Amino acid sequence: MSNDRLARQIAFIVEADKLKTVSRRTPLTDGSRPENSAEHSWHLALAAMTLAEYAPPEADLRRVLELVTVHDIVEVYAGDTFAYDPEASATKAEREREAAERIFGLLPGDQAMYFRECWEEFEARETVDAKYANALDRLQALLQNMKADGGSWQAHRVRREDVMRRMEPIHTSLPELWPFIVEVVDRFCAMGAIEV
Amino acid sequence: MSNDRLARQIAFIVEADKLKTVSRRTPLTDGSRPENSAEHSWHLALAAMTLAEYAPPEADLRRVLELVTVHDIVEVYAGDTFAYDPEASATKAEREREAAERIFGLLPGDQAMYFRECWEEFEARETVDAKYANALDRLQALLQNMKADGGSWQAHRVRREDVMRRMEPIHTSLPELWPFIVEVVDRFCAMGAIEV
Repeated sequence: MSNDRLARQIAFIVEADKLKTVSRRTPLTDGSRPENSAEHSWHLALAAMTLAEYAPPEADLRRVLELVTVHDIVEVYAGDTFAYDPEASATKAEREREAAERIFGLLPGDQAMYFRECWEEFEARETVDAKYANALDRLQALLQNMKADGGSWQAHRVRREDVMRRMEPIHTSLPELWPFIVEVVDRFCAMGAIEV
Repeated sequence: MSNDRLARQIAFIVEADKLKTVSRRTPLTDGSRPENSAEHSWHLALAAMTLAEYAPPEADLRRVLELVTVHDIVEVYAGDTFAYDPEASATKAEREREAAERIFGLLPGDQAMYFRECWEEFEARETVDAKYANALDRLQALLQNMKADGGSWQAHRVRREDVMRRMEPIHTSLPELWPFIVEVVDRFCAMGAIEV
């Protein structure tokens, strides 16, 4: 390829394919296998469109779709960090920062910055769009576990207070969904799939 | 759930999880397994962001992201149709129309229409956004096959004229990428992975 800029963009798209091989702890709804971070990211985009009416009115769907598309891409090198694993979470920021340098560094400089800003905005959870995107990320994991008979809650003996802390962004950014969240968590506590 | 509207939206998001189990003919770039339609859809969103500068200036990235997120969802019931299989392609429209009724019918009426319009816009390939989204769909399959030593071209003995016809939306909507496409196709013809 004679055009260096295009060659770098193609290399980035091709390298990103590896996100399809990064396993999360949450299973598919049929329980057949763990989901991967690429298909999970698509699911957040679909949820962002479906639930847009409950997001704060200032939310910008275009930006939210950009954030969810990019939010996990550093896992191509850093792997997925289980939300309920305190040891892995302690090293997550450093591992992901190095991965971000590497994956976004494949791109031309202006685009490396654009993608990095998407990732950092999602991680910082400060903007309205990032808060909504994070709420979707928490909701989607809950739905997967709910349909898969407890999924990663059950498999890793997760406690109610940790689940509730994890779901807090939904309380803030999708308040109309909060009663549903509490109902699901309480139901799985009663079943013994979440430790009380 | 007391809120029927929200219950329908949640049911749609949960049902859409099945797209992660729909296999395409194109392999992952490492050749380890076929990719599925959900992770493929995510990859198109990432490519839409990465290659936006080559799209026609009237293209609206938000709409393109909506189109690629929704474009394959009827496959939850209709399955993936291999682009180079004329028999399956003959029944594709009817099978997918029935699937669209069923999957979008899970949603409240106004949203069923919004999602259906996304899918129909992508399929019709008439708007600038749909043409760009379709060009990305063709490009992504080419990149997967390119990295996986010929992938579905090789496995199904696809002919050069059929590949070139399939790639035509790139010629129209991403003309700056066309020399790259021709170079890749010619290279795989020379290797014997595409039949001349």
